[in-house]
Amino acid sequence: MTYCVGMRLDKGLVFMADTRTNAGVDDIASVKKMYTWEVPGERVITLLSAGNLATTQAVIGILEEHHKHRDERRPDIYQTDTLFQTAKLIGDMVKRIIKDASDGGPEQTAGTFHATFIMGGQIKGERPRLFFIYPEGNFVEATDENPFFQIGENKYGKPILIRAYEKDMSFETAVKLLLVSFDSTLKSNLTVGMPLDLQLYEKDSLKRGFEKRFLPNDPYFLAVASGWSDALKAAFAELPDFSFDQ
Amino acid sequence: MTYCVGMRLDKGLVFMADTRTNAGVDDIASVKKMYTWEVPGERVITLLSAGNLATTQAVIGILEEHHKHRDERRPDIYQTDTLFQTAKLIGDMVKRIIKDASDGGPEQTAGTFHATFIMGGQIKGERPRLFFIYPEGNFVEATDENPFFQIGENKYGKPILIRAYEKDMSFETAVKLLLVSFDSTLKSNLTVGMPLDLQLYEKDSLKRGFEKRFLPNDPYFLAVASGWSDALKAAFAELPDFSFDQ
Repeated sequence: MTYCVGMRLDKGLVFMADTRTNAGVDDIASVKKMYTWEVPGERVITLLSAGNLATTQAVIGILEEHHKHRDERRPDIYQTDTLFQTAKLIGDMVKRIIKDASDGGPEQTAGTFHATFIMGGQIKGERPRLFFIYPEGNFVEATDENPFFQIGENKYGKPILIRAYEKDMSFETAVKLLLVSFDSTLKSNLTVGMPLDLQLYEKDSLKRGFEKRFLPNDPYFLAVASGWSDALKAAFAELPDFSFDQ
Repeated sequence: MTYCVGMRLDKGLVFMADTRTNAGVDDIASVKKMYTWEVPGERVITLLSAGNLATTQAVIGILEEHHKHRDERRPDIYQTDTLFQTAKLIGDMVKRIIKDASDGGPEQTAGTFHATFIMGGQIKGERPRLFFIYPEGNFVEATDENPFFQIGENKYGKPILIRAYEKDMSFETAVKLLLVSFDSTLKSNLTVGMPLDLQLYEKDSLKRGFEKRFLPNDPYFLAVASGWSDALKAAFAELPDFSFDQ
């Protein structure tokens, strides 16, 4: 499994992804799930992936190949005019890759090759945008009402996102929020694992923003994880106990 | 969907269940998911159910029928000598009911008729015990290492249970913990809904304990829900923000 979040703020975009991949609990590896394409001053596009590793790597591989071996008839992630077009390009590719893999025969279980993606960034002339791309190839865009997307093991870390997200929060606070959400997920599910990749995109900068890989012994991550555990216990203790007399 | 929790404490057992049932989001109803069989001074058995409503109602219905129309050859939930036997009785019944329903033909999707159960209580001569019963009819018992079970939509409400559960907590604190866990789930998933049914079982009492149905406007539930939201936000605000300088 996987846990990735893409979040839209007034200040720009924030992406975080875990790096664990597994085929069964005894076949675990670490893999990058965050990819970025950049032309400084012109476009920055970041992609987070969850699901079948063969499918997600095929998507990345074909995007890279199409760019290296340019051909007018083939779409190139460096050539799209808008992020909507970029989402359509990736969506079509995902749909085709899953369809090809599923042609293997009747023994294939529906959903085996599924993958979902969060794609966001900015192309000059547009505002920053954030999309959720489904295995079926269609996609939705983040709005003020739905300002963040999660893919993979999304449930454990959702309650804190719902409660603490604010669109005008700083990048510093947003990183804290994501680490709390990831910590809840890491504590609850073995198939999500450290290290965690972080990437920020500052609105209208049109260049890659701050990037960091949080290792398991990262002092700030450890401070957030233990601080949050203590704070939760203290907050819980302060709530009034139930009373049988009411 | 559904959310139910059964929890083992030093003081006894605590059960909580939501009451929403749905077949699609436009076909919602309220249904009881908590059933109790009691012979004061001799046995108390409480059952929580999640999954296909036809399956769970069939289990309850057959348990009731077997008792009303007694027959030595048929197992009766009032006649088992231990809770282990009770779990086996219910497990066998669940397995048979799902198998019968799945015989309908090849158009049936695997898992359509699945249901899971939490069963707990005490039979004279034993300590209080708590079991998780799978759709396959087998079951596991709660231990000191795994002191609570969740069925249904279990992920949203799990992080707080992991962090705040303590085996020597009071019933009053346990009810608070369950309401916090249910509140996180209610806020995240529409298929879990109020009212919430609570039942306590006091160790060695061998009689039904305190019961309450929390309605949506219950003052204590509202105090916990809003208090927890505020406390989380305050706890989150107090954690140190990320710094780009580190």
